Amino acid sequence: MQRIYIQEVATRDGFQIEDQFVPTDQKIDLINRMGSSGLDKIEVTSFVSPKAVPNLKDAKEVIEGIDRKPDVTYTTLIPNVKGAEQAAECEADEVNLVASVSETHNMKNVRRKVDESFSDFKNIASFLSGTGIQINGTLATTFGCPFEGRISEDRVLTLINEYLELGAGGITLADTTGMGTPKQVYKLCEKVLTRWPNLPITLHFHNTRGMGLANVIEGIRAGVIRFDASLGGLGGCPFAPGATGNICTEDLVHMLAFMDYEMRVDLDQLIDTAKRLETILQREVPGQIIKAGKITDLHSVSYS
Amino acid sequence: MQRIYIQEVATRDGFQIEDQFVPTDQKIDLINRMGSSGLDKIEVTSFVSPKAVPNLKDAKEVIEGIDRKPDVTYTTLIPNVKGAEQAAECEADEVNLVASVSETHNMKNVRRKVDESFSDFKNIASFLSGTGIQINGTLATTFGCPFEGRISEDRVLTLINEYLELGAGGITLADTTGMGTPKQVYKLCEKVLTRWPNLPITLHFHNTRGMGLANVIEGIRAGVIRFDASLGGLGGCPFAPGATGNICTEDLVHMLAFMDYEMRVDLDQLIDTAKRLETILQREVPGQIIKAGKITDLHSVSYS
Repeated sequence: MQRIYIQEVATRDGFQIEDQFVPTDQKIDLINRMGSSGLDKIEVTSFVSPKAVPNLKDAKEVIEGIDRKPDVTYTTLIPNVKGAEQAAECEADEVNLVASVSETHNMKNVRRKVDESFSDFKNIASFLSGTGIQINGTLATTFGCPFEGRISEDRVLTLINEYLELGAGGITLADTTGMGTPKQVYKLCEKVLTRWPNLPITLHFHNTRGMGLANVIEGIRAGVIRFDASLGGLGGCPFAPGATGNICTEDLVHMLAFMDYEMRVDLDQLIDTAKRLETILQREVPGQIIKAGKITDLHSVSYS
Repeated sequence: MQRIYIQEVATRDGFQIEDQFVPTDQKIDLINRMGSSGLDKIEVTSFVSPKAVPNLKDAKEVIEGIDRKPDVTYTTLIPNVKGAEQAAECEADEVNLVASVSETHNMKNVRRKVDESFSDFKNIASFLSGTGIQINGTLATTFGCPFEGRISEDRVLTLINEYLELGAGGITLADTTGMGTPKQVYKLCEKVLTRWPNLPITLHFHNTRGMGLANVIEGIRAGVIRFDASLGGLGGCPFAPGATGNICTEDLVHMLAFMDYEMRVDLDQLIDTAKRLETILQREVPGQIIKAGKITDLHSVSYS
């Protein structure tokens, strides 16, 4: 049985674009339930400017307020050295850095050139050196950019290398706006794992165009075993109003569980947590399993 | 380039469960647009009892009213010899028979045992013999039954054989309530195609649990090249209110087109037709591409 690692991003990638601020105690309660359900990693929050992302202004309170399970990695997104300082104060297990492969997307997202982002990252890496806090490097728009279109595979490999040179222990290839196809995912992942066979690669898919779980299947076939997903399928893409968001954690775990992959996650507990998320947000979320039930949830027979 | 055949079911599998009756002229207009867009087969309607399925009470008017493209196969579902007579009067290219692999589901669906269904089918086949009308045999609940759970692969193979013995030229393996996993799809299709390497197999998936397009990928990997899909993702499952329906035709064609598969379909025309469907139904349909746009629909850059 192949072990697959499930990494949760709803409280960061999802909450940051919600219309409403989720109260701090509800965030903490939700993350505690996520931890108990057996997820391998949780991206708790983001230490960005509260002006830029008011929904995550309580980053410090949240990360300090949660119960930390010893076998869960608690990570946080940080944009700069100030964020690294905050993450260190809160004793995050890991920080997640984000640069886009596309120059245009990086400029739109963080208002600097990709080179400038990596210069900042070197300062972050220097600051974190010796703290024991791990660095994960995310490459946004790896499978396509909503402005530039297709992205060169060589450019992706070059930027992976830049992350590795500054000490990143893991790399996330992110399909930020859901542009990757299963064929493309297989091809790129095979190329990356041929060059770095032991590199912990995470695939971060959005289901914007319905290909999210198909992309997971092809990622696994290429040898990837770590996947980001968002409870309830929260998250989204500002260019695709109405389209679904990140791939949905409980839908992903459900599919892989019934394909006999080994995970630590308790699917029923995860589904309960997703239902709680719907209660908190008071709206329907895109996830399918909380609507359809598991494959094994059979119906009783009544002949009318 | 591998040629993939796209078969449309929205006006049958979709419309039969809509809350509203779609006017006959709108059905005809929609099917004409589907034909023009280059779909390979269209399941136009169903000759069932108007009492059982009032939405399709205009089956005869619809099939007689459409413009028939010579390279499109126009098929219709029929439940009995009376339906076969009607299909023959309207000169359908093909009739589609449906039996469930699961006894319980067959009883719920058509109120007879599976053996009884196949006895009826023999009479249908006798009636159609010499008419030139092809027979397609559909096996509902092939990948799982909402009452009985998992389905034996041997039982599926036995029933395929029964269809072939009565003269079916093609077989559809239907995942009626979205219970199949990609692994299961690959395994069963490989088994079927090992036994009947030249049999035209269609896979009919529902996206009830989000696995629809992932199942297509594994079906193709096993050698299947024919897929049913529903414009806008129409259709559904009575046991999963709120869950998505059949896999969505334009989402399927979009994915396969950007994976370089060869299809006859004009994707832009198909997307326009899906948007028209939304206008006709006056509600949002589950398809993602009409919300998110194609991968190649880039956004202009404006720095605010």
